[in-house]
Amino acid sequence: MYLGVDYYPEQTPRELWEEDFRLMKELGVNVVRIAEFAWTMMEPEEGVYDFGFWDDVVARLSDAGFDIVLGTPTATPPAWMCHKYPEILPVDEHGVTISFGARRHYTVHSETYQKFSVAITTEMAKRYGKHPRVIGWQTDNEYGHEKSDRSYSDVDRAAFQIWLKNRYGTLDALNETWGTVFWSQTYTAWEQIPVPRKVYQEHSPALLVDFDRFCADGYTHYNKLQVDALREHIHPDAFITHNLVYSDMAVNQQQMAQDLDYVSFDNYPVWGGLPEPNRFEKMASDHDLCRSSKQGKGFWVMEQLSGAQGWSKIGYLPRPGHIRLWTYQAVARGAEAIVYFRFRAALFGTEEFCHGIIDHDGKPKRKFAEVKQIMTELNTFGDEINASTYQADVGVYFDQENVWAWTHQPHSDAFDFRTEFVRFYGGAVRKQVATDIVFPGDALDGYKLIIVPLYFLTNPTFDQALIDYMEQGGHVIFTYRTGVKDPHNNVIPKTLPGKFATYAGIEIDEYESLQAVQENRVEGIGAFSGQLSPARLWCDLITPTTAEPLAVYRDTFYDGVAAVTRNQYKGTVTYIGASIDDAMIDTIYAQAFEEAGIETFEVPDQVEVVRRHGETRDFVFLMNHDTKEPKQVTLDGTYQELTTQETYSGTVTLAPLATLILTT
Amino acid sequence: MYLGVDYYPEQTPRELWEEDFRLMKELGVNVVRIAEFAWTMMEPEEGVYDFGFWDDVVARLSDAGFDIVLGTPTATPPAWMCHKYPEILPVDEHGVTISFGARRHYTVHSETYQKFSVAITTEMAKRYGKHPRVIGWQTDNEYGHEKSDRSYSDVDRAAFQIWLKNRYGTLDALNETWGTVFWSQTYTAWEQIPVPRKVYQEHSPALLVDFDRFCADGYTHYNKLQVDALREHIHPDAFITHNLVYSDMAVNQQQMAQDLDYVSFDNYPVWGGLPEPNRFEKMASDHDLCRSSKQGKGFWVMEQLSGAQGWSKIGYLPRPGHIRLWTYQAVARGAEAIVYFRFRAALFGTEEFCHGIIDHDGKPKRKFAEVKQIMTELNTFGDEINASTYQADVGVYFDQENVWAWTHQPHSDAFDFRTEFVRFYGGAVRKQVATDIVFPGDALDGYKLIIVPLYFLTNPTFDQALIDYMEQGGHVIFTYRTGVKDPHNNVIPKTLPGKFATYAGIEIDEYESLQAVQENRVEGIGAFSGQLSPARLWCDLITPTTAEPLAVYRDTFYDGVAAVTRNQYKGTVTYIGASIDDAMIDTIYAQAFEEAGIETFEVPDQVEVVRRHGETRDFVFLMNHDTKEPKQVTLDGTYQELTTQETYSGTVTLAPLATLILTT
Amino acid sequence: MYLGVDYYPEQTPRELWEEDFRLMKELGVNVVRIAEFAWTMMEPEEGVYDFGFWDDVVARLSDAGFDIVLGTPTATPPAWMCHKYPEILPVDEHGVTISFGARRHYTVHSETYQKFSVAITTEMAKRYGKHPRVIGWQTDNEYGHEKSDRSYSDVDRAAFQIWLKNRYGTLDALNETWGTVFWSQTYTAWEQIPVPRKVYQEHSPALLVDFDRFCADGYTHYNKLQVDALREHIHPDAFITHNLVYSDMAVNQQQMAQDLDYVSFDNYPVWGGLPEPNRFEKMASDHDLCRSSKQGKGFWVMEQLSGAQGWSKIGYLPRPGHIRLWTYQAVARGAEAIVYFRFRAALFGTEEFCHGIIDHDGKPKRKFAEVKQIMTELNTFGDEINASTYQADVGVYFDQENVWAWTHQPHSDAFDFRTEFVRFYGGAVRKQVATDIVFPGDALDGYKLIIVPLYFLTNPTFDQALIDYMEQGGHVIFTYRTGVKDPHNNVIPKTLPGKFATYAGIEIDEYESLQAVQENRVEGIGAFSGQLSPARLWCDLITPTTAEPLAVYRDTFYDGVAAVTRNQYKGTVTYIGASIDDAMIDTIYAQAFEEAGIETFEVPDQVEVVRRHGETRDFVFLMNHDTKEPKQVTLDGTYQELTTQETYSGTVTLAPLATLILTT
Repeated sequence: MYLGVDYYPEQTPRELWEEDFRLMKELGVNVVRIAEFAWTMMEPEEGVYDFGFWDDVVARLSDAGFDIVLGTPTATPPAWMCHKYPEILPVDEHGVTISFGARRHYTVHSETYQKFSVAITTEMAKRYGKHPRVIGWQTDNEYGHEKSDRSYSDVDRAAFQIWLKNRYGTLDALNETWGTVFWSQTYTAWEQIPVPRKVYQEHSPALLVDFDRFCADGYTHYNKLQVDALREHIHPDAFITHNLVYSDMAVNQQQMAQDLDYVSFDNYPVWGGLPEPNRFEKMASDHDLCRSSKQGKGFWVMEQLSGAQGWSKIGYLPRPGHIRLWTYQAVARGAEAIVYFRFRAALFGTEEFCHGIIDHDGKPKRKFAEVKQIMTELNTFGDEINASTYQADVGVYFDQENVWAWTHQPHSDAFDFRTEFVRFYGGAVRKQVATDIVFPGDALDGYKLIIVPLYFLTNPTFDQALIDYMEQGGHVIFTYRTGVKDPHNNVIPKTLPGKFATYAGIEIDEYESLQAVQENRVEGIGAFSGQLSPARLWCDLITPTTAEPLAVYRDTFYDGVAAVTRNQYKGTVTYIGASIDDAMIDTIYAQAFEEAGIETFEVPDQVEVVRRHGETRDFVFLMNHDTKEPKQVTLDGTYQELTTQETYSGTVTLAPLATLILTT
Repeated sequence: MYLGVDYYPEQTPRELWEEDFRLMKELGVNVVRIAEFAWTMMEPEEGVYDFGFWDDVVARLSDAGFDIVLGTPTATPPAWMCHKYPEILPVDEHGVTISFGARRHYTVHSETYQKFSVAITTEMAKRYGKHPRVIGWQTDNEYGHEKSDRSYSDVDRAAFQIWLKNRYGTLDALNETWGTVFWSQTYTAWEQIPVPRKVYQEHSPALLVDFDRFCADGYTHYNKLQVDALREHIHPDAFITHNLVYSDMAVNQQQMAQDLDYVSFDNYPVWGGLPEPNRFEKMASDHDLCRSSKQGKGFWVMEQLSGAQGWSKIGYLPRPGHIRLWTYQAVARGAEAIVYFRFRAALFGTEEFCHGIIDHDGKPKRKFAEVKQIMTELNTFGDEINASTYQADVGVYFDQENVWAWTHQPHSDAFDFRTEFVRFYGGAVRKQVATDIVFPGDALDGYKLIIVPLYFLTNPTFDQALIDYMEQGGHVIFTYRTGVKDPHNNVIPKTLPGKFATYAGIEIDEYESLQAVQENRVEGIGAFSGQLSPARLWCDLITPTTAEPLAVYRDTFYDGVAAVTRNQYKGTVTYIGASIDDAMIDTIYAQAFEEAGIETFEVPDQVEVVRRHGETRDFVFLMNHDTKEPKQVTLDGTYQELTTQETYSGTVTLAPLATLILTT
Repeated sequence: MYLGVDYYPEQTPRELWEEDFRLMKELGVNVVRIAEFAWTMMEPEEGVYDFGFWDDVVARLSDAGFDIVLGTPTATPPAWMCHKYPEILPVDEHGVTISFGARRHYTVHSETYQKFSVAITTEMAKRYGKHPRVIGWQTDNEYGHEKSDRSYSDVDRAAFQIWLKNRYGTLDALNETWGTVFWSQTYTAWEQIPVPRKVYQEHSPALLVDFDRFCADGYTHYNKLQVDALREHIHPDAFITHNLVYSDMAVNQQQMAQDLDYVSFDNYPVWGGLPEPNRFEKMASDHDLCRSSKQGKGFWVMEQLSGAQGWSKIGYLPRPGHIRLWTYQAVARGAEAIVYFRFRAALFGTEEFCHGIIDHDGKPKRKFAEVKQIMTELNTFGDEINASTYQADVGVYFDQENVWAWTHQPHSDAFDFRTEFVRFYGGAVRKQVATDIVFPGDALDGYKLIIVPLYFLTNPTFDQALIDYMEQGGHVIFTYRTGVKDPHNNVIPKTLPGKFATYAGIEIDEYESLQAVQENRVEGIGAFSGQLSPARLWCDLITPTTAEPLAVYRDTFYDGVAAVTRNQYKGTVTYIGASIDDAMIDTIYAQAFEEAGIETFEVPDQVEVVRRHGETRDFVFLMNHDTKEPKQVTLDGTYQELTTQETYSGTVTLAPLATLILTT
């Protein structure tokens, strides 16, 4: 198993290198990622390449016995380039040019920048592509992150117009599709079409989502340029990856992933300014996104947090056990390599307070010991775990285009797509049900149940797959705002949930958006009688046609109106019409899982259980994400813990932040 | 009575038109507003006019028996125009040009834009001006709304300099009036004068209010260009109107109204992102503003909310009864026509979540039934109600220039002019006392009492009218910050309340502004003994000269100092020196009303009573604005309800959101 | 003693001047500050000087018997200049040019502006420099205030590049120092270096602090230009001062002070929008900064608040006694002249609601009487008080460069340097221990104890002075984040607290930043047993080597770890590793003071005691800053009150806001 560190020799006094290599060896490191961000050290002036420094680094790392992942340095255009070709700089929605002085200060649509990027990538590939120790390549770094996804310069505008011309062919088609008769926006020349800079009100929803597609396509195309340049020169066994960020930005991670050998992921469960780590379901969903983006293929964690992070705000100090817990969570869900960020804290630069394994004083301490323990364990058991498989009963639908649609029209001041997605996704995770993410185009037939959260912007391919699935007896859980939009981000003129109404056995007569200060109440009926939940964000007023109501509203004029329903189509089709709380989600899901024949596992709050199936034995990861409370889990048999060889059965107490890897 | 819908045939598939007309007929519609926003459909390229589509629409609506109100499309400059003449685009205070892509993206001061606007208006007027079914015209749409009131481009700056030259004649006069010796702002050439773009501190108050006047004059002038262009070609019976927005923006609605035949009003008691509708006194004041802007003439509600509204945030769902309640509130206060926004929800564009009578699925449901009921009622009784009159005992002073002065100097982080104005206006409404708004120049002698809220920027005409009124025995209620500023927004060097000190019988020695986190306490004395109220926002420390104190402060070093006073001049002059709560406002007003011989009517909170006097019978509108609680009102006699013919006497229970129209 | 008013004859009708002079005489005024901001009145067009108005003012003030302080008018560049030379205007970090229309709209780096400034200063100096009544000069007004400290224009960028070239000599040196290998920021030409305009992430910490130094140097240089121009022409006894603002801005007040004869200070304990005055320790620290900036020399309060202040938001009304209290606090801590802002409120301009001694109505009232009392007292006793001395046992370290480093990296969303500095400074003030501020380069040997709060960016000179001090037995109190950064704002690769670790007897293994919503708990141990405090903002996890722990954490995984320690080196070295509350600061300090042999004085909260040593008698200022509660202080002997001649001994009750000046 690959275990590594992100290392910045260029930021480290040369006299410390040997000692650093020794410490890495002590940790158990076998791979080192280097060189992303180091453009000026390779091309100090336009067209002049000098790899002397990196030749030395590569040689010394190789000599020390490490494999190497090389990053292309294109996240940081050099000062000389920005000064000479200012058109590569991005521009924000107010028309402000982003200054040189940090990173990601380029627009992906600049052909000038594309040329420079291909050139440096080609030079690197030629230089190191056949080196036996250079096992892989990372293109750029975190495309689109930190608001660098959407740029609004004149370069972007011209590129957008060309992209639209390619997409629509004629202005008539564009005008018709976008509905530009609204507010007299009919375009009579491609040059008239704006990028969505500041307006007094809001831009057209159709334009906004197309602009996001354009931005995402720009990144996919730009990445492909680098991939192609690399592929031409590197040895066939070397892999190409990119460390994706799964957020709401205008990048289509899953689309881009198809051009990569691996997906990589930067795993920061907490960051500068956050008082607490993200909830564990969020991290679980990130891992599932990574694994599922490449059809179940294992992914790399290219940056695993190993210390308090932050720029001007420094963050939460990972508690003892946190690094190990977060590592095993990733491994359990499909990470086949873990690279820790970063080996040693920088003494200068914006990220000087991004702490890693070793702090500014250079002394191995608590975090070093924890990483060493993990690497020792994984160097022993990692390959066997990697060889085992993760099998999901449940698929959870996700489409980045749907995220964009929600981002532009969040409906409520309290709505955040990711938060709400994770809650509906989490209903499975909290029942310890293994989940895949399913994207448009993925096959559904392997799953016992499909969860389709917040399916606002629909996708015809997925629509059809889902209908086929239901026709063949599949079980489905829908949520509010299903079936509202067509792929152009226009409203579908059907009674909601649109083409799924028959399957769900309901009609939605009216609905209401709730703001942060508002809530309604929902009460379970029938089997769910007595269960109460607030209803936040959204309330569908449902008329069941063939469905039975599972819960009804208990406030305002729609007191008594159905809020959650279940229909027996061929399988069951559940519809959750409001943002109910986790507890009610869990109860509703539990019944649906039962009807779908999915095994669930009751554990206390904050405990995560993931099972991997090996050839000779299975691995059950028991993880307590609670920082303070021990949790008790009752086992269904006798297990041996992988790292300690201890035997566990009956009721097991998980210390705060403990991870047990039980084997059958 | 005119009852109608806002209709967008251009956004509706042609095959739905006939069905839409049928449904409109079923509702009881007799007028349809169309065509505002449809510029490119009439002038697809510069100077080329094509009215084919609209000819068809007008013909078919006429054939279907509807009268038509046509909107000029100038709120939405076409893409071809913005691309070719970018100087028409507005610029914000940071120098950011507002992009094409939404609406209202023009500066009213652009002569280029004025020319295009007059041309399209003229063409429309020529084409449809004599059509017998085209009964009226709406210019543009909601001038100044959504921050489009103030533009800071170079075009605006040049126009501002000319406007100032016309206003002041000489730089000496301007320098003297503005007090430019302060901070060395003396101008020695007109070209030096800025528009109030971003500064480190704040611009001169005098410049700011003159800039607002300039913006408002720009809109009045621009509207007049359209009015004149229309008048030349339309038949003499056709009216010209504009759907005004009464907010704090730099538009002078009442000034503009003088060029219109009618005032129109877009009645949205709730909008996207608001968790609750505005308080009913706010809506009442809007209606009074509309009616009074044209000397009591009935107005049109050109857009009456009929569904949940919103762009990216969707709002509150009107409860059953809300549309009827808000319709009758408007009618009671002078609306002589109601046009519902909008007949059918759009499937695309920024306003696709502005819901109307019929939602995206095209099915008539609850809202359709409610509007149908209202139209049925008003088609029966509407004309008689319209023929009756609304007679006010009380005038409430309002001047948009005063609003601007407050906007630029709100004194406290918690001060909002409209909120505070509505509270002081509401003191009459809550006692069911009929109110007019009085503007500078209006006659006061018909009123038994004048309320003068927040009279910060004074107006010499009104000063004199008010003094004459008081000299003739009129009763007046003043509030804090009366008499502070002259019309140039400079401070008047008099002991406050300035020229009203003698009438109010007080002198204000000191005062204090309170921020959101602060409050003082006020306690009634004498007749008001025992009544307590917080004092927020502002505290005048009053020394009565001839007045008697009604309430005093009960905190800080001014404990015991007068906060509210009443003076017997010829009539009574009440002065409220702090932002006391509604309950104390109501008590203070009650006594003042009694002394002025004004009848009040005690009803529960949230109940509104409006009386209209007809030739043969009076109409008493009883409206319960509470969404949850029924309210009991005790009648002074026996009445017949207009729509149900039921008889009411004694104590009547008003269901939540119920409206009763009692007749004598 | 100089007692005066800030007067604006140019804003005052000429017919009021004589009456104003009479009222000033009645107050006890002997000096008047005039003319800052009046540029256009002296140079109405480029190069044309006309001093007629000011000749008259100077003559009449002189005739009336007043001394005069003249302000150079450069805080307000004229309209003609800004229009003709727009390159003098500053630009914000988003690239927005600051408009003409308020004040401070110049960049100090503009050579054009420097020339104009020297010219007008020279002309003024020639005209009035030898006038016997013109006793002093104020350069400009509040350099850098209101965000005018950092400008990002092309002029600034070019100047920054030159400044860097002068500082570093070679790009290699700059690249090495700044660590530009981080994120590929290596500069290969000076022209490539940006000013820190908007980036997606954050600029390099080293660049940011150098940019601040550049801005500060710009102001120091600009001020020196004026000082030199004045010095050449004014009579030798005339002083030159500037009214400094001590805030976090990019101005180095103490550096600039060395070019001035006096420091002046604008004393506004409360301002528009603040619900309450600043805490008294804040004001005390401002006075100590002023006095210590010129090595203990008395300073002028050039603007002493005498009424409610504010622009668009009007503020807190000073309570009876506040002006006197704040005056005596300044005098006790070293103010040798007090000039009240402002004699009379303006009727126009942005500051029309900056109230002064006389309000808009021109009537002398409460505030007039209070100022008159103060001047009467100080005209009697002021000179004797000024001749007495303030002697500090404790030095508190302060360096503006450290403030900048904190400003750019506040670590926590809740950290504010000034607030936190005042809390650690206040620990001495609250024990009535006299304090000096010590700057880098100041001698430490006169002090019994040095407090070194928040010593994040270190200074080699001070490091050495402090080490010498500790080696000679000096007592020191450190706080969290001591020793983190070198002067280039890079991290020092040492175990914290770096070079002070041995002296403090501790090592800091880890640390954590807490956000606003977070807190840990700290509990005293040993002598401090039972004392509890929250720990906010920051937690150092301390391993004592030779120190003893005084308090430990009581939450999270570092429960039991030391939070506060004390080491016996030669003197005692205290280290406070968390933001503990005032009460615990006070207890920790009390013990440290005792060990250092510093006398403390227990008085109730909000009471300040300052002692000055006179030749014949001492003055003990007893001040109660509480606006509501009287406070009791027990005297150690019998004293006579200076202004009333009353005798006090035993327990004295201080009324709210009372000041007693007890003499021995």
